[in-house]
Amino acid sequence: VRRFVVLGRSALASGEFSLDDLPGTSGRLDVLLRCVRAALLHSHGIRHDTVIYLVLEGGHRAPRTVRVDGASAKFVRPDERPLATLLKKVLSSDADESHAGFVDVRPGIALAKGGLEIVLEETRGSPKYVLEENAQDIRGVEFDSHDGVFVLGDHLGFDERTRAQLVSLGAKAISVGPLSLHTDDVVAIVQNELDRRE
Amino acid sequence: VRRFVVLGRSALASGEFSLDDLPGTSGRLDVLLRCVRAALLHSHGIRHDTVIYLVLEGGHRAPRTVRVDGASAKFVRPDERPLATLLKKVLSSDADESHAGFVDVRPGIALAKGGLEIVLEETRGSPKYVLEENAQDIRGVEFDSHDGVFVLGDHLGFDERTRAQLVSLGAKAISVGPLSLHTDDVVAIVQNELDRRE
Repeated sequence: VRRFVVLGRSALASGEFSLDDLPGTSGRLDVLLRCVRAALLHSHGIRHDTVIYLVLEGGHRAPRTVRVDGASAKFVRPDERPLATLLKKVLSSDADESHAGFVDVRPGIALAKGGLEIVLEETRGSPKYVLEENAQDIRGVEFDSHDGVFVLGDHLGFDERTRAQLVSLGAKAISVGPLSLHTDDVVAIVQNELDRRE
Repeated sequence: VRRFVVLGRSALASGEFSLDDLPGTSGRLDVLLRCVRAALLHSHGIRHDTVIYLVLEGGHRAPRTVRVDGASAKFVRPDERPLATLLKKVLSSDADESHAGFVDVRPGIALAKGGLEIVLEETRGSPKYVLEENAQDIRGVEFDSHDGVFVLGDHLGFDERTRAQLVSLGAKAISVGPLSLHTDDVVAIVQNELDRRE
């Protein structure tokens, strides 16, 4: 399984945002929604071999993490507004209050209290890669395309503590090219590289 | 200059769509809007070396073409709703009615009556590439990264006549990988390849 983890440093962990002004009211949850599309959808449907985690670090309910599993997720649309509507419903759930770890709240979509540490717990043993600028070119990196965990920052990048935590776990820093790109473009390029390796 | 041309076979050439249901009311203009983001924006702003043409073939005002020039465009946002709002205003203009060729209607954004032929006229002499499945891998293609015109279909792909027209002009068919991807992902991957060549 291919796994993507997007860290939303300001992304709202509750459903209290406006669909009409997503960037302005959700702590840039729009960035993360575009990553869901890029990670999970191709022209002919959904990627059953991909899971994406959205780590939401903004607002009074943070941290919370949403997991979308391509193997079973339904109603994943390419456009932002319905994706935002779906996430709003998911985040309005209280199911994670009384449950440790991920709890399904929609088909293929689970919610958990906690942030990156809960993802690291669930993906223990799988090789980790941190996407960042000026690191080794992904095209020259050998990896198991069936068992990689790719960790990406949002528009704010990683904070120092998180980066240090990932490196201490053996995460390898890799880069997709010479320019700093939007997170969803990075996801698309990583997926393309994995597609080519299969 | 890098140029992208996206053919929207059903994309509405007028502003008569709803921002609250873009896919359902605009002939999938949302696909083209996402291509604008992928073509023009990176983490630190706009790509001044890129132009994107949206060829709108749907509705009673079709065909019309919108040209967004990264060198001078303003207010190009990454999220769909403000991009759709901007395009709605552009398409509500009548400036192209009394003018042959492209006419500026917003900073860096021009509108023209006519479809692909007007783009081919404007890009005459520049090498053309058609993005499609099962063609030569882009990584093995030699091209001038400063003067390429990359033509992409929307979610419906190319019609036969258009494809034949492009091939007769010497357009080379290229592919970004083994899977059929969303058009905006293809744009992101082409931009990444061009970035790497510079």
